[in-house]
Amino acid sequence: MNAHVLLIECPDRTGLVYDITRSLAEKQLNIIANGEFVEHDTGRFFMRTELEGDVQADELVASLRRVLPAEARIKLEPPRKKRIVVLVTKEAHCIGDILVRCQFDEMNAELLAVVGNRDRLRPLAEQAGYPFHLVPHEGLSREEHEDKVIEVVASYNPDLVVLAKYMRILTPKMVSTFKDRMVNIHHSFLPAFIGANPYRQAYERGVKIIGATAHFVTDNLDEGPIIAQDVIHVHHQYSPKKMAMAGRNVEKHVLNRALYLVLEDRVMISGNKTIIFE
Amino acid sequence: MNAHVLLIECPDRTGLVYDITRSLAEKQLNIIANGEFVEHDTGRFFMRTELEGDVQADELVASLRRVLPAEARIKLEPPRKKRIVVLVTKEAHCIGDILVRCQFDEMNAELLAVVGNRDRLRPLAEQAGYPFHLVPHEGLSREEHEDKVIEVVASYNPDLVVLAKYMRILTPKMVSTFKDRMVNIHHSFLPAFIGANPYRQAYERGVKIIGATAHFVTDNLDEGPIIAQDVIHVHHQYSPKKMAMAGRNVEKHVLNRALYLVLEDRVMISGNKTIIFE
Amino acid sequence: MNAHVLLIECPDRTGLVYDITRSLAEKQLNIIANGEFVEHDTGRFFMRTELEGDVQADELVASLRRVLPAEARIKLEPPRKKRIVVLVTKEAHCIGDILVRCQFDEMNAELLAVVGNRDRLRPLAEQAGYPFHLVPHEGLSREEHEDKVIEVVASYNPDLVVLAKYMRILTPKMVSTFKDRMVNIHHSFLPAFIGANPYRQAYERGVKIIGATAHFVTDNLDEGPIIAQDVIHVHHQYSPKKMAMAGRNVEKHVLNRALYLVLEDRVMISGNKTIIFE
Amino acid sequence: MNAHVLLIECPDRTGLVYDITRSLAEKQLNIIANGEFVEHDTGRFFMRTELEGDVQADELVASLRRVLPAEARIKLEPPRKKRIVVLVTKEAHCIGDILVRCQFDEMNAELLAVVGNRDRLRPLAEQAGYPFHLVPHEGLSREEHEDKVIEVVASYNPDLVVLAKYMRILTPKMVSTFKDRMVNIHHSFLPAFIGANPYRQAYERGVKIIGATAHFVTDNLDEGPIIAQDVIHVHHQYSPKKMAMAGRNVEKHVLNRALYLVLEDRVMISGNKTIIFE
Repeated sequence: MNAHVLLIECPDRTGLVYDITRSLAEKQLNIIANGEFVEHDTGRFFMRTELEGDVQADELVASLRRVLPAEARIKLEPPRKKRIVVLVTKEAHCIGDILVRCQFDEMNAELLAVVGNRDRLRPLAEQAGYPFHLVPHEGLSREEHEDKVIEVVASYNPDLVVLAKYMRILTPKMVSTFKDRMVNIHHSFLPAFIGANPYRQAYERGVKIIGATAHFVTDNLDEGPIIAQDVIHVHHQYSPKKMAMAGRNVEKHVLNRALYLVLEDRVMISGNKTIIFE
Repeated sequence: MNAHVLLIECPDRTGLVYDITRSLAEKQLNIIANGEFVEHDTGRFFMRTELEGDVQADELVASLRRVLPAEARIKLEPPRKKRIVVLVTKEAHCIGDILVRCQFDEMNAELLAVVGNRDRLRPLAEQAGYPFHLVPHEGLSREEHEDKVIEVVASYNPDLVVLAKYMRILTPKMVSTFKDRMVNIHHSFLPAFIGANPYRQAYERGVKIIGATAHFVTDNLDEGPIIAQDVIHVHHQYSPKKMAMAGRNVEKHVLNRALYLVLEDRVMISGNKTIIFE
Repeated sequence: MNAHVLLIECPDRTGLVYDITRSLAEKQLNIIANGEFVEHDTGRFFMRTELEGDVQADELVASLRRVLPAEARIKLEPPRKKRIVVLVTKEAHCIGDILVRCQFDEMNAELLAVVGNRDRLRPLAEQAGYPFHLVPHEGLSREEHEDKVIEVVASYNPDLVVLAKYMRILTPKMVSTFKDRMVNIHHSFLPAFIGANPYRQAYERGVKIIGATAHFVTDNLDEGPIIAQDVIHVHHQYSPKKMAMAGRNVEKHVLNRALYLVLEDRVMISGNKTIIFE
Repeated sequence: MNAHVLLIECPDRTGLVYDITRSLAEKQLNIIANGEFVEHDTGRFFMRTELEGDVQADELVASLRRVLPAEARIKLEPPRKKRIVVLVTKEAHCIGDILVRCQFDEMNAELLAVVGNRDRLRPLAEQAGYPFHLVPHEGLSREEHEDKVIEVVASYNPDLVVLAKYMRILTPKMVSTFKDRMVNIHHSFLPAFIGANPYRQAYERGVKIIGATAHFVTDNLDEGPIIAQDVIHVHHQYSPKKMAMAGRNVEKHVLNRALYLVLEDRVMISGNKTIIFE
């Protein structure tokens, strides 16, 4: 991403795009990609614009404020790598993929740290040159443990928190602390097979497809706005173990796709849904 | 299919394939494709064999009976088109596809009749030269109506009954009458979005994928052995109506794939799962 | 589609979207969906807008002309079914799908006629209530035959001509007559397996995937702007015949997707590429 | 894999499976999965069997030799991790994936070493604890360079050599040294876009899909037996750079699938094709 990205959300009205683009034109900014969407059910307007030119951020936002409704949400992102912290437990596939991409500059992210409630993945992070923080949960209440996690994560002031197979149920405090900037990869094709042992469930049911879902985290477990989903075909010869292996492949793939979208500011949230400008 | 297909299911034991293939070799039959599978959980053995040569059916089955356990299930299918009856309500996409394929000999099936609880699809069937039977449900109990349906369908003595968007909940009598030979296309990626208005549910949930499932019909609604599943990607611009349109495309595709498999005797049932020899 | 669709293509410059949307705002038209794209290599600007409100077409286009560069291409499409003519030879799968969709109002098209160089598909078209014109090529030069085809097709004044497995090589005259409004489904994943017997070629090469490509027709055979492509997985047990069957399934699916996009005015052409606003 | 895998290839004849399974039954070996295939064009028989029991390898092969034609190829693989050496140049995505899988025991392989003609990926290999050998090609003829590569690779006596974006054209000597045990990932959906800059080619052509192909290496560049292929959808907003990124994702996925199949002895070679027992 070499361009600024402008994200606007507000109630729709006639002339909105005109008012916005006038502000851009007055500042000699060129639109190189643009998407708009009006959500029929809510009457809300969403817009994502890639801008070239001499962007003076404060001035531009101020001039947009003058023409937009008071409740408009305006976000202007300069071209930069996003700061991310990744939470893990013990599975290597998702964090392994992120580490290789970050180490070889194939992701629009600066990886600040990996935080785990177990120590198993420390070598993987550290061998790649990234800090690893162990925050063990043994002997702590959920709230006590999570306060420590929040403290570590918040100390990095990340743009995005990635739950890369972090197998802990989050408290409302954790969710609200990183509201709209925490992405989870779910071991299932939501809303099917919610809960424990999804691959065992899938195996018992004899499904021919298994999937994975990446979503923003909200208070309702496994219920946040979906960013990306995909599936792979399986068949009767798949044991639960082999289903889990296939599941890890699709998890890795779906999380990567979601992160690509979020890290390029292509995702806007509307209630429990996402608007995605590809 | 120009070959005979032999399907065998029984408890596994050492030497089983040897005993079976000896029977085939003694009769100078050549195996041109073969698949075996032992289900770990149940210890059951499944085998599908395509045979070339001078197959004397009764003799062959008798000689197999002599070497197999008493409870073995043996099915020997000659190369022939399967006799099918299709049940519909008012949606044209699945039956439309079947009609074109049957009319142009692109399906291993002889379409005997279309039966509907509404009259909307009569022209589609009749214009293609196939009989259409209207069995209206108005003013009848579920059992009364279904007795009439069973009577019409059974009069054709079909190998397979296809529920091509037949929007009626079946009675246990109907299910048992056509046990293991009735295939349904379900408007969803089971087990997600069971029940009414799946595309509205999918829209409300903001999913990025919708799917369809073809399965054998059992007493548990939407719970029979799955034969085929697939999905398509959707996005935030899809209205419920457009999701339904996309859903019809994947329904048609999945039903066709399931029918292809069943009509070529590639599907065996094991409890609530299918073993598929592709 | 209940909205007007506005398509604009011109060289990019700062302020373009502003100028366009001012014209729309002045006429109290509301933008309910909008996509813009600037092609980096050519510096050309593409825009697709769905409009609600009291659209006075001539007035709107005139006011847009005043603010846009002289060479701008402007197309304003009212919400209506597109008029299509379908050309066929002898394969039923693509035209069969179109017929069912048109008969049951599941396609944004009014099917005017089916034209074939063979008579095989006449019953399929006529049984569904659509005119079929046989234009045999026997005893005619390519040019003589095609003049007759052009005459029949042009007599319907279609918005779009669909080559649904029309197995004739077109003359430049045919191509130029229906420039930018003729779509072909190609029996291959272009640019692989160009030419005759693609499924035999695919079989010989032992590929694990076969595909299909829908594209606008240009003078270079099989080389026009691609609208949609897709593939399906195959394996070593697929004979050339079975590969062809699988190929027909993906052809049908890809042509349907391309027609959906074109019939909703979601496709713009840029040289040998398409810009698609989904 | 906890079972022995038996692979047999020979000319087909009546009674073959019987003769083979008699040998297995005589030794009290149980068949837990089995696949056979007769290639119609060549009349050759292929069989893959998973065996449980007390396998005495030499004895079993000898007894099979007695019943099979002289030219039969018999391979009996014990349950073990395969020894692999990976060749790389400078792209991290494929080797990065292999390293994470090997380090966390998610691949049926023992990674012996990484060999590169450039030094860029040394840290990635070494940080994960695997040896890295630099064999620079500067100042050497192709043959001289490759002799050094062969020497290093052969010193590990690998079961399989993986070309994980190794960007060198191989000599016939290299190909014959590792005949039938060298797998390459090709940056394209073969046979389309053979040659240099495939993503630039794909971009120029305006394709809607890009793919990757994993194949055994033969003397004909990019022409060996295909093991796995897959594709991903792209659109007009993809620059060549973004297409390459998408391409890397599909390359990684396809190579992983091919390695899974080969490392579990699921792939047999027939001329320029593969027979795959999934």
